[in-house]
Amino acid sequence: MIPIISVVGKSNVGKTTLLEKLLPELKKRGYRVATIKHDVHGFSIDQPGKDTWRHAQAGADMVIISSQQKMAVIERVEQERTLDEIATGIENIDLILTEGYKRQDKPKIEVYRPERSETLLCKKEELVAIATDVPLNMGVPEFALDDSIGLVDLIEEKFLK
Amino acid sequence: MIPIISVVGKSNVGKTTLLEKLLPELKKRGYRVATIKHDVHGFSIDQPGKDTWRHAQAGADMVIISSQQKMAVIERVEQERTLDEIATGIENIDLILTEGYKRQDKPKIEVYRPERSETLLCKKEELVAIATDVPLNMGVPEFALDDSIGLVDLIEEKFLK
Repeated sequence: MIPIISVVGKSNVGKTTLLEKLLPELKKRGYRVATIKHDVHGFSIDQPGKDTWRHAQAGADMVIISSQQKMAVIERVEQERTLDEIATGIENIDLILTEGYKRQDKPKIEVYRPERSETLLCKKEELVAIATDVPLNMGVPEFALDDSIGLVDLIEEKFLK
Repeated sequence: MIPIISVVGKSNVGKTTLLEKLLPELKKRGYRVATIKHDVHGFSIDQPGKDTWRHAQAGADMVIISSQQKMAVIERVEQERTLDEIATGIENIDLILTEGYKRQDKPKIEVYRPERSETLLCKKEELVAIATDVPLNMGVPEFALDDSIGLVDLIEEKFLK
């Protein structure tokens, strides 16, 4: 199984920003990385009027677009897939980072800034690290919000060796 | 293997429009259908600034977004996937219709309107049907451009029984 680590935290605390720091550092070290974003609002990713959008509107259960550089698949689901179900379909990837998925049973990195909330989202037992701008001294490894090298060192040591 | 039929024709002849007619008729008959659009221009499907777009920009090799209603996967590829490679990853689908892929070795329905071109794109041996607005009498079954019932009858008879 491909290791899965969830980047969690309250809304607008900086989860995407942290992923934007981790990804280049992981790529620099030669890993192939997938991200999974947990959407709770009902996302729309395709653009009205495009051929693929028209296929979906006309009733296609799955719409794929494929080119020399990339491939995209948009699929209706009966019920939300778990991370393990999603991971089963992934090949040729070394590490999966999720944005969100605080309720699933995967090791987590919480992004924490006291200006966004008084308390952490997770219990310390769930956390492999905290990315934060204040000292917490909870017995969980702490990193600055921009310390991608420190965080990737820990990810590498714990999950990729 | 899931049957694959390619809807082909010159550009702007009405391939997407034909798919928009076939899909509801297939759904009405209870089939689960996937479409694959062949892109030769370098598509962009995600929207600048969205979290998933930011993941891809930061270097993710594969970006997934998942909700209760649907799931989308955008993946970089080293080289363009063949239809058979794409089909290998598809489950729980009865029929795959492609838009384009005139050069791959799949049964084809050509959309033909003389106002778009003098000649057909395909040889008659490649064609299971022609959707057209003029009589051609080439020895290939011909259907009007809006005859979704006739076309789906043929698809059902030849590929889904």
